[in-house]
Amino acid sequence: MTKNTNIRISLPIVCFVWQIAMIILFGVFIRYNEESDTHWIEHKRKNNISSHIENDFYYRYASFQDVHVMIFVGFGFLMTFLKRYSFGGVGFNFLIAAFGIQWALLMQGWFHHLDHEDWKIKIGIENLINADFCVAGCLIAYGACLGKVSPVQLMILTLFGITLFAVEEYIILELLHVKDAGGSMVIHTFGAYYGLTISWILYRPRLSQIKNLQASVYHSDVFAMIGTLFLWMFWPSFNSAIADHGDGQHRAVINTYLALAASVLSTFAISSLSKKYGKLDMVHIQNATLAGGVAMGTAAEFMIMPYGSLIVGFCTGIISTFGYMFLTPFMERTLKIQDTCGIHNLHAMPGVIGGVVGAISAAAASETVYGSEGLINTFDFKDANRTVNMQGAYQAAGLCVALAFGIVGGALVGGILKLPIWGDPADINCFDDDVYWELPEDEDENIPASIHSNINHVRNMQPEVYRSNL
Amino acid sequence: MTKNTNIRISLPIVCFVWQIAMIILFGVFIRYNEESDTHWIEHKRKNNISSHIENDFYYRYASFQDVHVMIFVGFGFLMTFLKRYSFGGVGFNFLIAAFGIQWALLMQGWFHHLDHEDWKIKIGIENLINADFCVAGCLIAYGACLGKVSPVQLMILTLFGITLFAVEEYIILELLHVKDAGGSMVIHTFGAYYGLTISWILYRPRLSQIKNLQASVYHSDVFAMIGTLFLWMFWPSFNSAIADHGDGQHRAVINTYLALAASVLSTFAISSLSKKYGKLDMVHIQNATLAGGVAMGTAAEFMIMPYGSLIVGFCTGIISTFGYMFLTPFMERTLKIQDTCGIHNLHAMPGVIGGVVGAISAAAASETVYGSEGLINTFDFKDANRTVNMQGAYQAAGLCVALAFGIVGGALVGGILKLPIWGDPADINCFDDDVYWELPEDEDENIPASIHSNINHVRNMQPEVYRSNL
Amino acid sequence: MTKNTNIRISLPIVCFVWQIAMIILFGVFIRYNEESDTHWIEHKRKNNISSHIENDFYYRYASFQDVHVMIFVGFGFLMTFLKRYSFGGVGFNFLIAAFGIQWALLMQGWFHHLDHEDWKIKIGIENLINADFCVAGCLIAYGACLGKVSPVQLMILTLFGITLFAVEEYIILELLHVKDAGGSMVIHTFGAYYGLTISWILYRPRLSQIKNLQASVYHSDVFAMIGTLFLWMFWPSFNSAIADHGDGQHRAVINTYLALAASVLSTFAISSLSKKYGKLDMVHIQNATLAGGVAMGTAAEFMIMPYGSLIVGFCTGIISTFGYMFLTPFMERTLKIQDTCGIHNLHAMPGVIGGVVGAISAAAASETVYGSEGLINTFDFKDANRTVNMQGAYQAAGLCVALAFGIVGGALVGGILKLPIWGDPADINCFDDDVYWELPEDEDENIPASIHSNINHVRNMQPEVYRSNL
Repeated sequence: MTKNTNIRISLPIVCFVWQIAMIILFGVFIRYNEESDTHWIEHKRKNNISSHIENDFYYRYASFQDVHVMIFVGFGFLMTFLKRYSFGGVGFNFLIAAFGIQWALLMQGWFHHLDHEDWKIKIGIENLINADFCVAGCLIAYGACLGKVSPVQLMILTLFGITLFAVEEYIILELLHVKDAGGSMVIHTFGAYYGLTISWILYRPRLSQIKNLQASVYHSDVFAMIGTLFLWMFWPSFNSAIADHGDGQHRAVINTYLALAASVLSTFAISSLSKKYGKLDMVHIQNATLAGGVAMGTAAEFMIMPYGSLIVGFCTGIISTFGYMFLTPFMERTLKIQDTCGIHNLHAMPGVIGGVVGAISAAAASETVYGSEGLINTFDFKDANRTVNMQGAYQAAGLCVALAFGIVGGALVGGILKLPIWGDPADINCFDDDVYWELPEDEDENIPASIHSNINHVRNMQPEVYRSNL
Repeated sequence: MTKNTNIRISLPIVCFVWQIAMIILFGVFIRYNEESDTHWIEHKRKNNISSHIENDFYYRYASFQDVHVMIFVGFGFLMTFLKRYSFGGVGFNFLIAAFGIQWALLMQGWFHHLDHEDWKIKIGIENLINADFCVAGCLIAYGACLGKVSPVQLMILTLFGITLFAVEEYIILELLHVKDAGGSMVIHTFGAYYGLTISWILYRPRLSQIKNLQASVYHSDVFAMIGTLFLWMFWPSFNSAIADHGDGQHRAVINTYLALAASVLSTFAISSLSKKYGKLDMVHIQNATLAGGVAMGTAAEFMIMPYGSLIVGFCTGIISTFGYMFLTPFMERTLKIQDTCGIHNLHAMPGVIGGVVGAISAAAASETVYGSEGLINTFDFKDANRTVNMQGAYQAAGLCVALAFGIVGGALVGGILKLPIWGDPADINCFDDDVYWELPEDEDENIPASIHSNINHVRNMQPEVYRSNL
Repeated sequence: MTKNTNIRISLPIVCFVWQIAMIILFGVFIRYNEESDTHWIEHKRKNNISSHIENDFYYRYASFQDVHVMIFVGFGFLMTFLKRYSFGGVGFNFLIAAFGIQWALLMQGWFHHLDHEDWKIKIGIENLINADFCVAGCLIAYGACLGKVSPVQLMILTLFGITLFAVEEYIILELLHVKDAGGSMVIHTFGAYYGLTISWILYRPRLSQIKNLQASVYHSDVFAMIGTLFLWMFWPSFNSAIADHGDGQHRAVINTYLALAASVLSTFAISSLSKKYGKLDMVHIQNATLAGGVAMGTAAEFMIMPYGSLIVGFCTGIISTFGYMFLTPFMERTLKIQDTCGIHNLHAMPGVIGGVVGAISAAAASETVYGSEGLINTFDFKDANRTVNMQGAYQAAGLCVALAFGIVGGALVGGILKLPIWGDPADINCFDDDVYWELPEDEDENIPASIHSNINHVRNMQPEVYRSNL
């Protein structure tokens, strides 16, 4: 089986054509909203807004930048853990996120923010945050495929991922009127099952025999900790970024902060318990410590109470770590799902738990706890008929929609990506930056050439030669 | 002397039991405050608050996130400088900070924020910042013990450290009514002497003979610069995070920014002066450049004037660098205090200086400079009897309390940590991640096995074998 | 040709004398402004300011911290890409930025913020941002000289760079009344041509024969991506940090965000197109992806429309990548300009483009698009005579001023730096941290000494010996 990994034509074409399409579509559809337009000063006077500080920008910009860091540094560096795929981890993450946010502004705009007077989408800071959120779903999916797909495939995965996301989000948030500020369902459940289904379809049976590159080295693990920590620290901003002004954002931060803290302790406990001498496993620390943030995505805004957040974080930390220990190998062996970053443990399970926690806590909401105004405010009840019980049921329905979109969408897109024209690597070239990147010479150039000869020989061969060798 | 470093039972137990205790105590005691509760909307109306933006969240959230980055990435990566202890540096920092913030919310809550009507602690964004501050004290103490203690010991160090901190802080801030927004005394002086005393009690006499791992490599030094820079950049947020709204936060930022800038120049100057050919020492650059931030912790809010801040930063940069050159080796040889990160130079001395600067500038405060309202405002004088001179004296008293708590507390906790049941490493295993972490294979796997044989042999031996070899 | 790289006297002297001069000048000239002074509370009452949140601090602090991260981590880590100059890249960046911000507060203060009543400069958060901006110009210039100059030379480059910047900025912003919120002209064009002219004067003809150290290794490229990403993510804050409150900041963020996203796609496209098998080049990804941010520096505040921003980013990404492929080698060979970081491609060309885009979009501004109030507001028209066409012409004039200051200033300063007394390295020692830093032992200490002997021999020789060998 030989594979052509030459992307010298396909990648530039995809980037150029899609970027030019973005420019045209933006030209037709996208304008500034009243808070980012020079007419703001008139709008402000007309609506009796007392001060510039009431511009939504000042409510959300700090959170936006934190989310932005999570998307580009958080996800990007978390994926640098492989010994020879750090360029691909952080670099392709950069590429698809930069494309995805543009496409998301359009897709989400058409569904949520189309002004039916002039058929324009009016964007402001909240749209930028939502675009970042939308991209997060695709980056999660990338985690399952890390090292096994070409950048062209990733661009396609992103194009369809964003499209599916926008439809799914429209159904869940607008039609079902479900609350999901931090996206346990909309982002994490969808993104994870989308990626896992794609990975299942792209299953590489012989990979386990030759995957010596699917491992970390000391320094690549430290690089990955940069990603972990920026995700962990800024997750409170993620879950609060588009929450209600005032107490909504405030409470979402507190809940997420606490859930994350509890996840760290349960992850360290289970990780230590699982290994000889109680030694800790970096894979667990890098990933499962984040499970609490995922699981608080839906309920962060609710009055789940500080101890409730701790319980959620505590349990998901345990479940996620067990997932890395038992489920990931089981899935690879038995279900034929190869999940490079273990997104099933970090996003799929905690995302589903988050959806369930959200449904339960919505159904259990009461005027005693929330206050009558607070209840209406928090769940944004416009319709007098909807009760908290119904809200709980709708939340559960939303979770099912996210799952369905992830699995069905992933199957479709996986089928497209299986076509042999996208330049994906042969099994032996997986997890190797050498396929898609010009690599610098080796670090230890001070070692005599003779010692290097072996590896150099292999490395200098062109991908074509690799393949025939296989 | 053999040591059992197996923490497979003790670490999970400590993490589980303490996390469950946190959940129970949070359930009993911790609730949202009026700004993070759904009743905020009623509170807002009742108190005639004009806008959501008046929620304290918007005054403090950006600073909170900066402080959060300092705690987890700043302190964490600063401690990755050792060649084979980067996992432990950033990983254990993560563990104890995640536990510490929970315990701090309780301890500080009981002392400062207990609502005597319903005996609940009502938390909001300021409590999260204070919890991060409280943890900083323990992370400083960790710096003295880096590489020589087990994670179980660190959890105990943190449990008691937070407890002592909350009491000390209560005495200094509430009883003595001392100002210390950036914690020169409360955080840095206390934390440093707490850690140094512990390290003194845990003295390892034979360590100096075998400490070949107590050194950096090129890339670990670059990793540590990530920590240094995030601490340096965000220190203005640290010192201003809980300062008074308006001019208080604004001035604290300016003063800290300037003090830090001056520290950099004096550190480079002394470092260059100290070595042949004027070569710079990374240890100085990584640490002493931060001394100005520590030393401005108390006076940041005061009218110390921009040139005053420069003077403080300039002098502490010099003193701190000299500390690394002369004091650290002297302390290790003569006083039997092994201080891995040199916290005496970065936190203890600058912290004491900061306390003294605060006392002097408080005593020197005048209505001419501050304005009559400004004076009352800045020092929060509620009691008509207190003069600026008295305030200065109280500030000095606060410094003594911090010192006393650090030394006495450190002695007690050091005694507990000396018990031979906590899984601390033998001297020969100090500064080696291999004891508590599953390590990936070596980076240079392309070197023939024969060359590796030596090191691999040693590395693959289990800790037990190490010990008998010793 | 032997060179004395001993800076044991010169560097400490420069640091000490200049820092003491700063302290004296700050003492004479610099005070808090009304928003950071304890009199704020009276000022607030007198001016009927309703709330503390109206303090400019809360409009700008989050952006300030982002800019601060760009200066110290962004520029610093972007310059760690060389295999043996990471200490110098991030360390000297730290030194000169810390000095530069102090000197900038004075220079910019004298020109822009001198209170003519008491001849004091009153500083607040906006001054800190402007000081960071001012320093950015010098850090850009450092990029051209990276690895080839001594820290003493860099301090001189910075001293004069800040001085020239302040004059140039005064002429462009105050006298010509040009808009340039993100500094396409004032910062990038000036800084780049300043650095390139210096590098041209310091041309080292024999460097190309021995520049084996002028390359990256795998991990140094990953470190550089930290710099790239923090610059990329926070560039919207850079271009909006001192924009008008309200819609000005909001719009600047949106425009910059979009331009940057488009740059990423065009950079990946051209990079892939240029290499065999479509392999990507890390140099392009690390640099040209940022070109869109530079090019939006002037027009970010304007109603350039979302699609306009995409077009600007798209085109500059292409031009910048082509620059790295063809112009940098051409300039080195033919024009005798050695540009280590390729600042001509990242700052000079996109900066000029940004100036031109700004001039055109200013000239094309209309009341239809901006609204009558919005037009006056955006361009800050105080003078009834100025039309948008005139504004466009003045913008173009501003670009010429920036160019002239860069080139003439660079020629003067380059002449000073050519004096053989500043401790710059011999050609063979360029790009080697060993000249100015105490280096830790090699990472691969597990390799038998015999293998190392060669390199160790060379490395342990003192710089003096190096030279005689040459």
